Amino acid sequence: MNQNQTPLLDAIISNAKRPQAPFYTPGHKQGKGISSKLTKHFGKSIFTADLTELTELDCLFAPEGVIKQAQQLAADAFGSSQTWFLVNGSTCGIEAAILATCNNNDKIILPRNVHSSVISGLILSGAIPIFINPEYDTNLNIAHSITVESLSIALQKHTDSKAVMMVYPTYYGVCGDIKTIAEQTSKYNIPLIVDEAHGSHFAFHSELPVSALSAGADLTVQSIHKTLGAMTQASMLHIQGERININRLNKSLQLTQSTSPSYLLLASLDAARHQIAIHGQELLTQTLQLAEEAKNRINEIPGLSTLSFPPSSYDNTR
Amino acid sequence: MNQNQTPLLDAIISNAKRPQAPFYTPGHKQGKGISSKLTKHFGKSIFTADLTELTELDCLFAPEGVIKQAQQLAADAFGSSQTWFLVNGSTCGIEAAILATCNNNDKIILPRNVHSSVISGLILSGAIPIFINPEYDTNLNIAHSITVESLSIALQKHTDSKAVMMVYPTYYGVCGDIKTIAEQTSKYNIPLIVDEAHGSHFAFHSELPVSALSAGADLTVQSIHKTLGAMTQASMLHIQGERININRLNKSLQLTQSTSPSYLLLASLDAARHQIAIHGQELLTQTLQLAEEAKNRINEIPGLSTLSFPPSSYDNTR
Repeated sequence: MNQNQTPLLDAIISNAKRPQAPFYTPGHKQGKGISSKLTKHFGKSIFTADLTELTELDCLFAPEGVIKQAQQLAADAFGSSQTWFLVNGSTCGIEAAILATCNNNDKIILPRNVHSSVISGLILSGAIPIFINPEYDTNLNIAHSITVESLSIALQKHTDSKAVMMVYPTYYGVCGDIKTIAEQTSKYNIPLIVDEAHGSHFAFHSELPVSALSAGADLTVQSIHKTLGAMTQASMLHIQGERININRLNKSLQLTQSTSPSYLLLASLDAARHQIAIHGQELLTQTLQLAEEAKNRINEIPGLSTLSFPPSSYDNTR
Repeated sequence: MNQNQTPLLDAIISNAKRPQAPFYTPGHKQGKGISSKLTKHFGKSIFTADLTELTELDCLFAPEGVIKQAQQLAADAFGSSQTWFLVNGSTCGIEAAILATCNNNDKIILPRNVHSSVISGLILSGAIPIFINPEYDTNLNIAHSITVESLSIALQKHTDSKAVMMVYPTYYGVCGDIKTIAEQTSKYNIPLIVDEAHGSHFAFHSELPVSALSAGADLTVQSIHKTLGAMTQASMLHIQGERININRLNKSLQLTQSTSPSYLLLASLDAARHQIAIHGQELLTQTLQLAEEAKNRINEIPGLSTLSFPPSSYDNTR
């Protein structure tokens, strides 16, 4: 696919420029009636593009046009079989992933150090958490990833689990052995759901850890606003394989997202995908160099050190 | 309260202008790294203000600073005892209202012509809908409001209901007899939840129908982006009285909203409240005059007519 396109952003800009008398939402009518307190600081152009689900702009919950095209380009770039744009953060993606795989009282295996959105997903779905303890770093007092061993024990004991969830990378940047974990869950034919909120960039540089999809995850949720260039609150959910029921996932995503989605958030996902697909190699090479330099200089400061690992189970570089 | 303030918007702008090297989200680092495809059309200033939950910017789910102040100003302007800003549209407010009042298998009385977000709320909460038929206009083939009579029958039959919900106004702009309905639900001590998605402006002009809060509703959800000046996907939830458990409502709103809320959406709520509180009378007088003129001219076109009612049960003007 030609990653140099931005079909959704283009459609929004083209509609924003078209002279019209909008008898539809939003109430500020493309900025004509918006508070001068906002235009004074932000200009008018962003508000002219704050549009609603017009025919030309497709529909987030039944995409057939520019949203579908933009999502297909993202699927191609991130390496999924299907991708969904999210306007309620990774929170809604994580919740929908649990709702799509677990009924009330179904078991889901997951680590203790999950994000609060996972707990929300448990509450909303009624799923029963089978908690496993992640590796714990007593020196730094932080939790890392779940291990192959602890997951193996949980899977043997709870073969009726409907999903396994892992955090990859953790908030502190630590990556567990996702490849072996994906092999394990695959053997049991249980979907592996990944909270990859902090790992959206992994697929775009060979020196970064392997992406969850490349490692074999069935579903992954990424905060494109965190480590790539989308606006805050804009995320993506990707799937591959046959273990995720797409119809049920679609319905779950409708439960957890506004029926008035912001096209600005959606357009920023299209632009962020374009940016990383076209310029990712160059931008991430630069970022890795800067990170290496920062790390070396921090390590030179007496009393400070940075987190690093020997090429052990944590090392997933390709 | 001095409605001429915009504490949240001011804090965002002041933080956006402060020189800093952000080691926090979003990844575009206040627009420094955002796609040129976005800045080309929208400028840079909006992205410099796309900030995260910094200390100075408060926290949506435990507000103590500028978000709290902005919500208090909104409560004062809209006439509630407490107001919440919503970043996942009225969808999340409606869902949270149901989750905050109904456990699994609890009854909720509501009309057949509810919005899909209400159905989502039923699915997520497990509440049992007691549907009542709204008035049906066979000429126009559209549903209006529930009536006092039909609600009365449902309340007598289902005294154990945990909530009553009404749509006010309907999508077509029709307002039921909300005052008498609020008296009824109050008699049974059952909270009245209002889907006021299309009625955010009601409190700000005497020629408009009475607002849900003025009529005695316990909780109302308003799409500030629809009939006032907020950005798409920005809404508010208001309560009054003692029938809503605030702690449970807070938790329910956390279940249905991103933990990475967009400060641009939040700031637009602050600005929209300021605009309608200060300029509402003037802006709505002008809007009503234009609507009247449009109505008269449409009515002159052969074959077309506009929806209008005699001063009957539909008339709730103060």
